[in-house]
Amino acid sequence: MSAREQFVVHPIGVVRSTLRTTADAPNQAYEGAPDALIELEPAYADALHRVETGDELIVLTWLHLADRGTLQTHPMGDESIPLTGVFRTRSPDRPNPIGVHRVTVTGLEGATTVRVDALEAIDGTPVIDLKVALRRSRDA
Amino acid sequence: MSAREQFVVHPIGVVRSTLRTTADAPNQAYEGAPDALIELEPAYADALHRVETGDELIVLTWLHLADRGTLQTHPMGDESIPLTGVFRTRSPDRPNPIGVHRVTVTGLEGATTVRVDALEAIDGTPVIDLKVALRRSRDA
Repeated sequence: MSAREQFVVHPIGVVRSTLRTTADAPNQAYEGAPDALIELEPAYADALHRVETGDELIVLTWLHLADRGTLQTHPMGDESIPLTGVFRTRSPDRPNPIGVHRVTVTGLEGATTVRVDALEAIDGTPVIDLKVALRRSRDA
Repeated sequence: MSAREQFVVHPIGVVRSTLRTTADAPNQAYEGAPDALIELEPAYADALHRVETGDELIVLTWLHLADRGTLQTHPMGDESIPLTGVFRTRSPDRPNPIGVHRVTVTGLEGATTVRVDALEAIDGTPVIDLKVALRRSRDA
């Protein structure tokens, strides 16, 4: 691997949420995140084929407001926890700021909009992938 | 969101594995994947601080051999399963070919090498992020 190697990610869609700022967003989905919509670009409609209400999906987001230079942080912003490498945290601030969210599909609207339960990403967050969750491995 | 928006991912490291080709690799880790090493770039050593044996981590990889133009596939290569949108599969072939793998840390070697249990990515696969797994949400 060359240190200069890099890859280009193209958003497949965007999160629509009542969460408007990171100050509003819980650290984790189980801490009270609201339902949200995932609006896909029309070019990716075929990649949703057979997605149904009740499916459990992994949503990958690009945490566009993150600081990519952060290597250590106090988890959950709690300064009583020692500084910890970001690879042992869920901090959005990390070299490649990709969010991993497990959701349940609660409905489909048209060909490209997926309604999901608790999602802690703010309105306007780019979505970069969806995958089915693996029950057997507890995922993911 | 502009359809032209894009993001650049810089690998943080690489997978070292006895799996040499995708033909050797199981579809999922629980189907017999071997232990593997994650060799990080030295620049990211500080981001591993406090990672320990026994930690459960989410590893994100860049599936560099994938076909990014695939939108539908037969899951698990099984043609008896109807064509399915890739967003409802774990196929490596997808618009942004990011792999999500849940692993347990089985040891640390030096400042930048992490040994993990069952990982179905082949030798040389770029690693783009590590995160702690969330027990409460079953992750991820």
